[in-house]
Amino acid sequence: MAFNKRVKIKAVLDQSPIGQEITLMGWVRTKRSNKNVSFIALNDGSTITNYQVVADPNVIAEDILKKCSTGACIKITGTVVESLGSGQSSELNAKTIEVLGEADPEKYPLQPKKHSLEFLREIAHLRMRTNTFGAVFRVRHALAFAVHKYFNDRGFFYIHTPIITASDAEGAGEMFHVTTLPIGNPPRTEDGKVDYKQDFFEREANLTVSGQLEGELAAMALSEIYTFGPTFRAENSNTTRHLAEFWMIEPEMAFYDAEDNQNLAEDFLKYIIQYALENCEEDLKFLAQRAQEEENTKPADQRAELGLIEKLKFVVENDFVRLSYTEAIDILRNSNPNKKKKFQYLIESWGADLQSEHERYLVEKHFKKPVILTDYPKDIKAFYMRQNEDGKTVAAMDILFPGIGEIVGGSQREERLDKLTQRMQEMNIPEEELWWYLDTRRFGATPHAGFGLGFERMVLFVTGMSNIRDVIAFPRTPGNAEF
Amino acid sequence: MAFNKRVKIKAVLDQSPIGQEITLMGWVRTKRSNKNVSFIALNDGSTITNYQVVADPNVIAEDILKKCSTGACIKITGTVVESLGSGQSSELNAKTIEVLGEADPEKYPLQPKKHSLEFLREIAHLRMRTNTFGAVFRVRHALAFAVHKYFNDRGFFYIHTPIITASDAEGAGEMFHVTTLPIGNPPRTEDGKVDYKQDFFEREANLTVSGQLEGELAAMALSEIYTFGPTFRAENSNTTRHLAEFWMIEPEMAFYDAEDNQNLAEDFLKYIIQYALENCEEDLKFLAQRAQEEENTKPADQRAELGLIEKLKFVVENDFVRLSYTEAIDILRNSNPNKKKKFQYLIESWGADLQSEHERYLVEKHFKKPVILTDYPKDIKAFYMRQNEDGKTVAAMDILFPGIGEIVGGSQREERLDKLTQRMQEMNIPEEELWWYLDTRRFGATPHAGFGLGFERMVLFVTGMSNIRDVIAFPRTPGNAEF
Repeated sequence: MAFNKRVKIKAVLDQSPIGQEITLMGWVRTKRSNKNVSFIALNDGSTITNYQVVADPNVIAEDILKKCSTGACIKITGTVVESLGSGQSSELNAKTIEVLGEADPEKYPLQPKKHSLEFLREIAHLRMRTNTFGAVFRVRHALAFAVHKYFNDRGFFYIHTPIITASDAEGAGEMFHVTTLPIGNPPRTEDGKVDYKQDFFEREANLTVSGQLEGELAAMALSEIYTFGPTFRAENSNTTRHLAEFWMIEPEMAFYDAEDNQNLAEDFLKYIIQYALENCEEDLKFLAQRAQEEENTKPADQRAELGLIEKLKFVVENDFVRLSYTEAIDILRNSNPNKKKKFQYLIESWGADLQSEHERYLVEKHFKKPVILTDYPKDIKAFYMRQNEDGKTVAAMDILFPGIGEIVGGSQREERLDKLTQRMQEMNIPEEELWWYLDTRRFGATPHAGFGLGFERMVLFVTGMSNIRDVIAFPRTPGNAEF
Repeated sequence: MAFNKRVKIKAVLDQSPIGQEITLMGWVRTKRSNKNVSFIALNDGSTITNYQVVADPNVIAEDILKKCSTGACIKITGTVVESLGSGQSSELNAKTIEVLGEADPEKYPLQPKKHSLEFLREIAHLRMRTNTFGAVFRVRHALAFAVHKYFNDRGFFYIHTPIITASDAEGAGEMFHVTTLPIGNPPRTEDGKVDYKQDFFEREANLTVSGQLEGELAAMALSEIYTFGPTFRAENSNTTRHLAEFWMIEPEMAFYDAEDNQNLAEDFLKYIIQYALENCEEDLKFLAQRAQEEENTKPADQRAELGLIEKLKFVVENDFVRLSYTEAIDILRNSNPNKKKKFQYLIESWGADLQSEHERYLVEKHFKKPVILTDYPKDIKAFYMRQNEDGKTVAAMDILFPGIGEIVGGSQREERLDKLTQRMQEMNIPEEELWWYLDTRRFGATPHAGFGLGFERMVLFVTGMSNIRDVIAFPRTPGNAEF
């Protein structure tokens, strides 16, 4: 017998089927009772809005109503009636209530009061039942769907690049080892080294830091592709911006140069933000309010100028600033915080790597807009970036967002075999390991480009949350792999 | 200067813009030349169909034409004209051709001749440039998009469950270890054991075999969720059906019982197949032809009765057969191959685990339809499956597809805390490790259900390929982590 005869609260709110008998199922958020009536605020996760259930103690037995405490899961059948008191247009007059699962008020941790984000992180298995995290994960879903829709609508193909990789040539960061050997007691070769020939893949294997190189292979066949998968960094970074396991979106496009790449990235970022604005209005309103309350606890001069929704609209409606690294260095060198030695890392000469403080100065103080920084010195960028005519810079781009810093990194790729192998030699990257990558420069090479978007940083930006651990369901960080 | 001024071949074929000057970019598949004219078959990955470029040697220099060999990447500007000779309605009269990247005919491995799938697997970095693999990966993309569209349209939320996990309780298979310790020389505790406190996560960690348990946590807040992510098995299975790294789709739904779960799974599978039929017509036609040629190499009595497209339509248009394990055992026990001892594993009594040969007999010989098998003996299924009233079976379901065997496994989940913990004790699963999973039975529990679809098995079914290594871009199997 099918059990799922319920209607979702989102549908009831959209349609207000006055006079109809319906069944709702969901979790009790709060219950207010007096002698004559009980009001239950019910949430089923389909929307942030609770639906009001009205229970008459003459109709619903007292022991049932007693069990309808915060967190309990209940099934209500009743009639939709016009609502006079509440802010909603309709409410449900309960005929029957069935308690599907209780939640002992003495033990259930999510009682209706304000909980700190730190506390909720410890009970990540329950935190999605709160308004804040329900909203965050609905918005996260919408952003993920927008990513797929954007690329699908434009004829890009989704490629699943490998998670386990034997290559560690990309050098994007420290890697996790993957093995089936007994750690501490592996088989050894005659000279005493670990005998990786006996490991599962018959060689050393790691978790990927990027699907880019494999993505390029696919782009050299299908023209326009994207990846959307997990990537890993085994770095001991306990910050509000880093995860050991995070999701990346990496489009790679044949026939794109650096400017095409910038155009695509800007259009793509605006699209997915606009999609969230259109499809997550209520969740974003709630998150905006939450962010505002957080802002209000800061000193006045550190508060954001724009509210969350204004900020998102501002990004969608305005051109990103595009300037070269060289121009940025000039601005930074002559900036007040540099002259007054307020930067932790002072900008003295061309070639310096930009720190978060510099990126944020450019975005938040100088331009007050998202910024696309291009043409970085080759010595601070990866081997595969296309070398510019000047012999000093590469066709890189980083996109910097207010409050986030770098959200996108990309480049035109070096398609010229001689230039690429020369750079690999300079950087001590063994050609044998990347023979397959070099083949795409040997056979039917073409100008091409791509970028990577850290998905959690985008969710952070759109939800206005401030710690990246709060925008992924079960965060992995140093010392933490719970759930 | 933006470089990407090209039109995709798919758009040109759809619109046939006769008389317009356009630019195409792509890879040469073949070139046929005589004294008066060269015909170049161009492919850009947007479609399986090559576009015919006509080059007059009086217009295009001989040395340029010479470089337009198979695999070369070229840019052509010219005028779209009606095509008389070729099977297409239009073709391109080249005004200029620029060779973006040559492909030395002496060295390029993909010359226009038939290559074995085994050979192409060795050059997986290039195989997407063939008709077969171009088609496979376009269909794979369409199926992945259909998954997201199906669930998004129905109000399910996409959850990214963790890839790295400290839990190994699910017991779905052998796991890969994830570590940052030096494998041959890890730090040790006083009693000589590996000191995992010094590992990245301060405990032992593995790659996930399933996102189900975490998915259930999310369903207990958002009602209907799905995962779509990589999962791993460190099993030494060198078969045409197993990968060490593969992608799974795992919906979990609050308020669903076993029947709701079956209904959803059947509807979902039909939807994504129908989506591929509607959106991948040309690729499927090609793959059907390829599969037919493969069938024709088999003895007549082993050939499939239906062609690929007929098979897909048959699945979409017919109800799946639903029967219990107990009914299936009766059928199998009385079947000819069992009586004649043709099965490798004879079915003698209730309780036997079904092997692939039994599943295929039911699907391919007895019912000739997809089959949903339900209510398996509890002793051959996982601890979290809901126990039926009979005390012997659980509310499991496996969906079996012709030529594939098990494509979906799922169940109603045990929501009753006492029954669940009792089963865990019987199966020696430590409660402490799954405290968070048990919490969802302590607080606001509800009937719920879910299933897992092995994505590559679905791609295998829809593309008619016969080896699972040929439907994922860069397969990971024992001894193989190349690219």
